[in-house]
Amino acid sequence: MNDAPRDPLVVFTPSGKRGRFPMGTPILTAARQLGVDLDSVCGGRGICSKCQITPMYGDFPKHGVTVTESALSPWNAVEERYKSKRGLIDGRRLGCQAAVQGDVVVDVPPESQVHKQVVRKRAEAREIVMDPATRLYYVEVVEPDMHNPRGDLERLMDALKHQWGLEGLTCDLRALQVLQPVLREGKWQITVAIHFGHRRSTGRIIHAWPGFHEGSIYGIAVDVGSTTIACHLCDLQSGDVLASSGLMNPQIRFGEDLMSRVSYSMMHPGGHREMTAAVREALNTLIGQVAEEAGVARELIVEGVLVGNPVMHHLLLGIDPVELGGAPFALATSDAITLWSAELDLRMHPGARLYILPCIAGHVGADAAAVALSESPHQQDELMLVVDVGTNAEILLGNRKHVLACSSPTGPAFEGAQISSGQRAAPGAIERVRIDPATREPRFRVIGCELWSNELGFAEAVGTGVTGICGSGIIEVIAEMRLAGIIDEDGAIGSAEAVGSERLIQEGRTWSYVLWDGRPEGGPLISVTQNDVRAIQLAKAALYAGARLLMDQMGVESVDRVVLAGAFGAHISPLHAMVLGMIPDCPLDKVSSAGNAAGTGSRIALLNSGARREIEAVVREIEKVETAVEPRFQEHFINAMAVPHKTAGFPNLETLVNLPAVRFEQGGGDEGARRRRRARG
Amino acid sequence: MNDAPRDPLVVFTPSGKRGRFPMGTPILTAARQLGVDLDSVCGGRGICSKCQITPMYGDFPKHGVTVTESALSPWNAVEERYKSKRGLIDGRRLGCQAAVQGDVVVDVPPESQVHKQVVRKRAEAREIVMDPATRLYYVEVVEPDMHNPRGDLERLMDALKHQWGLEGLTCDLRALQVLQPVLREGKWQITVAIHFGHRRSTGRIIHAWPGFHEGSIYGIAVDVGSTTIACHLCDLQSGDVLASSGLMNPQIRFGEDLMSRVSYSMMHPGGHREMTAAVREALNTLIGQVAEEAGVARELIVEGVLVGNPVMHHLLLGIDPVELGGAPFALATSDAITLWSAELDLRMHPGARLYILPCIAGHVGADAAAVALSESPHQQDELMLVVDVGTNAEILLGNRKHVLACSSPTGPAFEGAQISSGQRAAPGAIERVRIDPATREPRFRVIGCELWSNELGFAEAVGTGVTGICGSGIIEVIAEMRLAGIIDEDGAIGSAEAVGSERLIQEGRTWSYVLWDGRPEGGPLISVTQNDVRAIQLAKAALYAGARLLMDQMGVESVDRVVLAGAFGAHISPLHAMVLGMIPDCPLDKVSSAGNAAGTGSRIALLNSGARREIEAVVREIEKVETAVEPRFQEHFINAMAVPHKTAGFPNLETLVNLPAVRFEQGGGDEGARRRRRARG
Repeated sequence: MNDAPRDPLVVFTPSGKRGRFPMGTPILTAARQLGVDLDSVCGGRGICSKCQITPMYGDFPKHGVTVTESALSPWNAVEERYKSKRGLIDGRRLGCQAAVQGDVVVDVPPESQVHKQVVRKRAEAREIVMDPATRLYYVEVVEPDMHNPRGDLERLMDALKHQWGLEGLTCDLRALQVLQPVLREGKWQITVAIHFGHRRSTGRIIHAWPGFHEGSIYGIAVDVGSTTIACHLCDLQSGDVLASSGLMNPQIRFGEDLMSRVSYSMMHPGGHREMTAAVREALNTLIGQVAEEAGVARELIVEGVLVGNPVMHHLLLGIDPVELGGAPFALATSDAITLWSAELDLRMHPGARLYILPCIAGHVGADAAAVALSESPHQQDELMLVVDVGTNAEILLGNRKHVLACSSPTGPAFEGAQISSGQRAAPGAIERVRIDPATREPRFRVIGCELWSNELGFAEAVGTGVTGICGSGIIEVIAEMRLAGIIDEDGAIGSAEAVGSERLIQEGRTWSYVLWDGRPEGGPLISVTQNDVRAIQLAKAALYAGARLLMDQMGVESVDRVVLAGAFGAHISPLHAMVLGMIPDCPLDKVSSAGNAAGTGSRIALLNSGARREIEAVVREIEKVETAVEPRFQEHFINAMAVPHKTAGFPNLETLVNLPAVRFEQGGGDEGARRRRRARG
Repeated sequence: MNDAPRDPLVVFTPSGKRGRFPMGTPILTAARQLGVDLDSVCGGRGICSKCQITPMYGDFPKHGVTVTESALSPWNAVEERYKSKRGLIDGRRLGCQAAVQGDVVVDVPPESQVHKQVVRKRAEAREIVMDPATRLYYVEVVEPDMHNPRGDLERLMDALKHQWGLEGLTCDLRALQVLQPVLREGKWQITVAIHFGHRRSTGRIIHAWPGFHEGSIYGIAVDVGSTTIACHLCDLQSGDVLASSGLMNPQIRFGEDLMSRVSYSMMHPGGHREMTAAVREALNTLIGQVAEEAGVARELIVEGVLVGNPVMHHLLLGIDPVELGGAPFALATSDAITLWSAELDLRMHPGARLYILPCIAGHVGADAAAVALSESPHQQDELMLVVDVGTNAEILLGNRKHVLACSSPTGPAFEGAQISSGQRAAPGAIERVRIDPATREPRFRVIGCELWSNELGFAEAVGTGVTGICGSGIIEVIAEMRLAGIIDEDGAIGSAEAVGSERLIQEGRTWSYVLWDGRPEGGPLISVTQNDVRAIQLAKAALYAGARLLMDQMGVESVDRVVLAGAFGAHISPLHAMVLGMIPDCPLDKVSSAGNAAGTGSRIALLNSGARREIEAVVREIEKVETAVEPRFQEHFINAMAVPHKTAGFPNLETLVNLPAVRFEQGGGDEGARRRRRARG
């Protein structure tokens, strides 16, 4: 220790951590002592190759070091054997074998870091740092001895303590049942998967492999939506998504929307058990699909993270959701839950652990918590509005200081239901629309075809395949109708005469705008009716009113950033959403789509157990606003029926578009009355 | 607080704890503040009546108090209602309702103490103090509120924290699934059963009842023996044994003794699974029997404690016992285990917890740990030898300073197997024998008849019902033969001529002693053959040699106390055991029978969770001696073949009996050779 200053200097990049170590110290040892993030499963035995490093030679004035060719020990037999059997990228060494012989600069490539980042496609999205709850450990166990009657498990625990510093471990019975043959098959070398629960200090052995386990272990991230269930299979070591699959929620046969499923449970004793069985079976189908797609055995899926709205959450857990059907919307439990997969009848590793995110409130579920985790309003300096668009919209507003949440019953119009030509997003559905403000002639694109409808060859390309309008298409067409002066601020569709276009046709007392007439070729007539416009107005008004209520509560008149989440949100044109007045005015480049943010949040919680503690803490601090009993909600709702809005200014929008000041007659007095009635309901 | 000295004085008996409390303080509150052990399930609401106390009036010079009639508040409506509905013993008050009005002496009757003692029959046995791992708590939960979206479970947790100081709780999914209807049925009043695991700080809610749960909760204590499985059903509040039942271990069809069952597993792939299924099914039958006998619903059995030797332990857990069949006799696990009942397929409360005591070594199992807990050599000043007599004998030797353990393969002779007229203890079996040293005529008693065979009416009472000799009978008859000079020190049976009795009949080259000739009435000839004597010599020599090995290790030549444990041990006559030389010499009044000490230890662990921590710590400190590899074992074994012993003195025994110095010819030279061969095997 006295001659420590003369020991060689080891500098790690990219961390910049540095220290002096005695000659012969393995790089892995040096990294551990300095707290450098360098992975290892085999504990430095040259088996797992997770600790690969790249020594760098030459002059490093920045670090004040010159590295000679002899800075590290020569290749040894372990490294040579590893390289010849498995290959090693040029310039790489095994950190556990290469030892310090002189000053050296060592680069730790990203794939050798335990806490590596998982690449996300969106630039503005939060990083996912690997820190999974279940990890692999290789150890060598002392053989049994008649004079020391400790059991095999206890000697395994000793090895995990001495070789990895792991204490306070327990073991699943299933792992214990096979422990003896596994230890003997591996000649007292064993790899175990250990799940760390809420307390990082109390791990639980859930599986054991003889010798060094060459493969990885896997987890699923699941978003149980009312309509669709989405499942991602992830590698718990690399963080890669290996397969993704989605399935219609089979509970749809018990009711299209949440309230009809709650009603089914109220009307049919034990009905909730049927729905629980249906969703669990769908999950098992999905698990089978992703496992097959990725070529991974179901038994290697050792973890799952699940999210869903409160009704889905309760049904998944086998809890009758009846209390969620009426005030005070009492959740059976609001906190996060950890379970065994067997408790939910899920077929994966029999000792797999499931983690279910906390619910925010009776109407704002674990899916909203997952959106909060993915989009992280609580980490923003800017005031962020997150809108998860669905049958029931979840809305978050906040920044570093405070986050608010509410839900708003938008209804299924945005998903194409209640729309005369509406359909789900599928090939043949109109998804993009532009209307020429001068001619009022439309052009559009359908899912599955790259051409616009006015481009050469469109008719041949789609044939009779224009089948309807999907959610993003209906938003665009109505916004375009507003921009083209076909509807006025109140949403009334002008007559053919008033608008000056033959595309407007009369239906009873109101007018419809014909987008596509496929009838000559035996296809449908696709038009936007007055009722379609009303349905979208009701839905978007509910969304806006929810957001506005949160802005009131926050005491602000505008937001800095808007994120549209949900599978559907990913396809919405921000400009058209703003023309429609779905969202408050905001600089257009600050409006973005997050895709299935609930699924992403679920994946973050799967790959990073610290994120579980984070979202549990965040949810405890989120302030919930109950739209159902807030008197100002009705007022906001009625003002938000206008397109884009009766009273609120849209200064950013006005710099981008011109909103014609047209004014049409309401199509029949009963329509206006109906609108007001529904608005109140 | 300044006038505290003028507050009334409250003195509790029998604890003697005392303190001054403001006027109006309920007695329960005073007891809690002083740490007096006064029970309550309802938390002081006058519902559960667990806090009954007896105020005492008059002069108490010992306490320096005079108690007037007005020392406690008058009966209130809650007490009056309770008394009229349920009744209350004269002089009793409800501690939560009766409030301090003046100096008072309050007696806490035993049944009002949480940590009450359970009565045990044996005077010298350790006390069982109630401290069960699962307890009931009654709370009143705040109703849900739309503006505070915490779930029902979280508000229940809040109530348990504020009303009982319980924190860090979790909840079983099954309890969560019914929580909402239970809370509403009970009008936000609820009783929960909470199981406290290893950490007293982390309880888990396993069941919930609406309102106040009038009944109790129950647990089972099970001793899984190779031959017999015994089960006790206990009330977890009173500690009472409500029902007991036993069943043959159905694994017997796979092999009579442990090693033949291990062999079955070796020979038949998956054979251990058959044995696991058989023992679990037997446990389910037993649980059904005790539940029915006690009139208790299976679902109210919320805990179980199980013990067994290592092979039984492993098979119960579903672990192949093959490693226990040969050196180094490696246990899969030696530590205590906590499981859910579903993990062992046991049908009781679906969230019931099972606790399995630790194993001491590959041959000394959780049953021996239970014996150690019951007989507690580690708490003795005297040096105590505990012998659990069975097919495989477990032997403990120790005191406060140190405890040793070993097992010894006695074989099944003590259970009547390998004995020509041997049989299990059942009606018709000879269990007590006396032989007149002058006439060599025997008299005996059989199970199921109070008369001795030489008493008037015996023949009529038993008829042809003398069927064989059970284990305790064979020990007595051979010891009596030694005392009557029918066998010599080496175990050789004398001829009719040498002994001078017609009861000796020749069979081949050896002689047999006729105990009962039932042939004239169509019954059996019941005799003791030379081979019978040899078999018992082998068994008792193994037992003695094991004990002697522990004495060597301890460095002692005698023990202060001997405890004979095991169902069979309970029926052994201590004097005859000593004549035979099964146990070392010891004052006769220091030899006692403990009955099924393994079952008792299991019951202690069921009723007192602290005892679990105690035995876990004790087992870690117990020094194991492996007889199979100890060279001195053979020498001790050969010396112990003599009756009572070749070399060791029996000074205490010699003051009680006269051992005739007879000497007979060995019955055939081959017999001696065979004996030596078997002794080595």
